[in-house]
Amino acid sequence: MQPKFIFSNIIGTFVFSEQFTIFDKILFRNIEEYKNKGKAEVILKNKYKNLKDPEKKELMRMLSVFNSKEFFPDFHRKSIELTKERIKLSVKDDLLVIQAIDSIEENNKVVNLLTRRLREWYSHYNPEFSRYVSDNEKFIELLMGKKDKKTEESMGADLSRENMEPIIDLIKQIDSQYKLRGRQEQYLEKLMKKNCPNLTAVAGVTIGAKLIEHANSLKHLAELPASVIQLLGAEKALFRHMKTGAKSPKYGILHEHPLISQAKKSEHGKTARALADKIAIAARIDYFKGKFIGDQLRKELEIKLKK
Amino acid sequence: MQPKFIFSNIIGTFVFSEQFTIFDKILFRNIEEYKNKGKAEVILKNKYKNLKDPEKKELMRMLSVFNSKEFFPDFHRKSIELTKERIKLSVKDDLLVIQAIDSIEENNKVVNLLTRRLREWYSHYNPEFSRYVSDNEKFIELLMGKKDKKTEESMGADLSRENMEPIIDLIKQIDSQYKLRGRQEQYLEKLMKKNCPNLTAVAGVTIGAKLIEHANSLKHLAELPASVIQLLGAEKALFRHMKTGAKSPKYGILHEHPLISQAKKSEHGKTARALADKIAIAARIDYFKGKFIGDQLRKELEIKLKK
Repeated sequence: MQPKFIFSNIIGTFVFSEQFTIFDKILFRNIEEYKNKGKAEVILKNKYKNLKDPEKKELMRMLSVFNSKEFFPDFHRKSIELTKERIKLSVKDDLLVIQAIDSIEENNKVVNLLTRRLREWYSHYNPEFSRYVSDNEKFIELLMGKKDKKTEESMGADLSRENMEPIIDLIKQIDSQYKLRGRQEQYLEKLMKKNCPNLTAVAGVTIGAKLIEHANSLKHLAELPASVIQLLGAEKALFRHMKTGAKSPKYGILHEHPLISQAKKSEHGKTARALADKIAIAARIDYFKGKFIGDQLRKELEIKLKK
Repeated sequence: MQPKFIFSNIIGTFVFSEQFTIFDKILFRNIEEYKNKGKAEVILKNKYKNLKDPEKKELMRMLSVFNSKEFFPDFHRKSIELTKERIKLSVKDDLLVIQAIDSIEENNKVVNLLTRRLREWYSHYNPEFSRYVSDNEKFIELLMGKKDKKTEESMGADLSRENMEPIIDLIKQIDSQYKLRGRQEQYLEKLMKKNCPNLTAVAGVTIGAKLIEHANSLKHLAELPASVIQLLGAEKALFRHMKTGAKSPKYGILHEHPLISQAKKSEHGKTARALADKIAIAARIDYFKGKFIGDQLRKELEIKLKK
């Protein structure tokens, strides 16, 4: 029996004979040694000359050896260990960006739901004031500051202190929900500026985060062509266009961008296209940890659109 | 010209001649005097003998007098004043019951929405713990008590303090949302026991409040026959039954009642019918402010169902 093949897996580095039996081996004690498997291979290659890497067909025969009682438990344990470590390391900042932007959007839903209820409840007491302030956040702010004077002619009922308490309780809850959203927005801004400064400079915090969320990761966003980025978030309209021949959408998430909302209606398409171009560049620079040229990208974009 | 008719409206009490012109009048200075219009009528009836209340045809001719510059502005102003007062008084406790139960149900939605987000976010840090505790309220309670030890082999990432903060922030928000719901439930219970003690004794706080909410008021609930109460909240299934001949529903809101959930499946229909009977009685007693016999009703029901 001659040593012929060399092969490493998570358990160790093995030298196989021509008959596919194990001729020699160096076992790894932990994942660290597996990561430095090159060392073991060098040792064995020096010990036995002319070792070959196995071809696919040869490899298949060698692998069956590990399906034995001797190796399998170790193999199983170490695989899981390795998987766990990889999962651990897979939590990158863009996952946190996605959590934060999703949470902010849900917070918006929550404050709207709670404020709608509050308005109905509160209007038994002071309907005129509720109708007077239509902005929800402003409404809560004024209530918190006790600036909701009831007029003499109010149609509202005189609620007892006992019946006012739950209303005030709800006001406070909504106020704290607004404050939470504020803190989450600050956190998201920090995260975005740190991880994707270029994207943030060109697209803005919220739109940038939504793009990452739609693309599932910064990596995937960086791989997308500008034309896809332009339409991210407009999938429904796009499929409608493809199926029924309705007008094709000009933009998805990007429609909230100030450059688009400030542009003339006839320039919307052109603006969205130029914006998506720069966003694609910015996302790639950020993914590959390039330098910050966000301000420059933004300026180029503004000049281009002025023409 | 002889005085012939007497007629009161919100402006005053008037004596009309046979030719339908105003012969004499006592004007009201405010709503209070209108409410005591009987006094003015007595004075005028003593002054002129044999005054008649007008017939419908006569009344029509008299009313046109008030469509003049002299009376209309006052008429308009006082009508609005009266309407406002009536609206004010229409805010009864059952309206507050409806607000409270609706708010509690929305709170449930909110905590579920926020906890779902939290679980996803938190599981980047400690996925094993999140999966270990499936009850949402318990989950938040343990997190608040910092009982979420991370195991050595956890797959979760090691998040920096900065990235943990927004997660902890969200935990606290959900906790305060749960506490708000608790206080609202206490408030609702107080309200129900005060306003509809019999209904509460038979149906329980939540189901009683939901019945009032579905019927729009305690008054309307008291007017409903037991068979309708039995199916309140099962409108969809009922219409499906009527349209397609699918099985008729046995209960709507009542299905959460412990007497039904504890009964054998074959007894569900009978139990719901008996329960709805007693609820109808209880609601009527409560609406007409009768004595408390809730415990007795409940006992009768239990005896009946044991047979």
